[in-house]
Amino acid sequence: MKSLESYIRSIPDFPKPGIEFRDVTGILDSADGLRLAIDQLADRLEGVAFDAVVSMESRGFIFGMPLAYKLNKSFVPVRKPGKLPRETVSASYELEYGTDALEMHKDALRPGARVVVVDDLLATGGTAEACARLVDAVGAKVVKMLFVMELEGFAARSSKLAGHDVDALVRYPGK
Amino acid sequence: MKSLESYIRSIPDFPKPGIEFRDVTGILDSADGLRLAIDQLADRLEGVAFDAVVSMESRGFIFGMPLAYKLNKSFVPVRKPGKLPRETVSASYELEYGTDALEMHKDALRPGARVVVVDDLLATGGTAEACARLVDAVGAKVVKMLFVMELEGFAARSSKLAGHDVDALVRYPGK
Repeated sequence: MKSLESYIRSIPDFPKPGIEFRDVTGILDSADGLRLAIDQLADRLEGVAFDAVVSMESRGFIFGMPLAYKLNKSFVPVRKPGKLPRETVSASYELEYGTDALEMHKDALRPGARVVVVDDLLATGGTAEACARLVDAVGAKVVKMLFVMELEGFAARSSKLAGHDVDALVRYPGK
Repeated sequence: MKSLESYIRSIPDFPKPGIEFRDVTGILDSADGLRLAIDQLADRLEGVAFDAVVSMESRGFIFGMPLAYKLNKSFVPVRKPGKLPRETVSASYELEYGTDALEMHKDALRPGARVVVVDDLLATGGTAEACARLVDAVGAKVVKMLFVMELEGFAARSSKLAGHDVDALVRYPGK
């Protein structure tokens, strides 16, 4: 059987020169790769008691939603400002230049709900940490953060996501 | 058992005054609603021979991807310009004011592949029709278009999507 890693293509100089982009969509090009990724994510949640998957727009939706379906949980989309129709909570995070914000519906999680944050890629951890603040803001609790890929060069586990239970299927040493 | 329709909330005056927004994320707030939606979408594809699900960023990902997982198909994300790292094909579509474009990886579908287009909402059908052009451009074929909700007042089936096999789980008479 092919490894999950073998489905991830490296695209040089995207989105800008000098960056080697890890293309997670290569996993989705084959039904086998897609199934392998979701099943491996589910394996990492064995024994974890939780109620909801929270994922960030838009590649996070690709992995978070089938996981919620498979494990019979609810799904909470975190989106860019102004896209969610009900009352929201908001958290800002740093970009390379400037800041951006993420929003979540205020009533999407009941107080005390146990949440797994799922995204395709862990780099600096900025958006994941913003997600955790959104979950906190409604009185719910992040019990785990789960990623398909991790760029270990950003050291998110020991900086922005310190104190969280963080896991990733494929780990790359660089940035 | 609750109907799927009962999970969809109507939000008045969003995103602007006079528009009644059908909030599909209400389905996702409960594990039961989420499961019902995906299982009903899968039911509508019984007997349909196809290879891949194609969905539009970003709410389309929410429904298309678990369906691909459940039915063991590949998944092809259609995104806004500049977001996909490999070589793409592009199709423009009309907005209320101006135009926008959608892109798909050129090598995500093999020639002759049979495709189901999945999205959360069918209104004018503009983005779905643009998706069909992307699929055509790489020599694949749309065999069905499937939506969670349809606003029948836009008459997409008899205009922009004429000639396609179109289906929707919940149909609203207005716009």
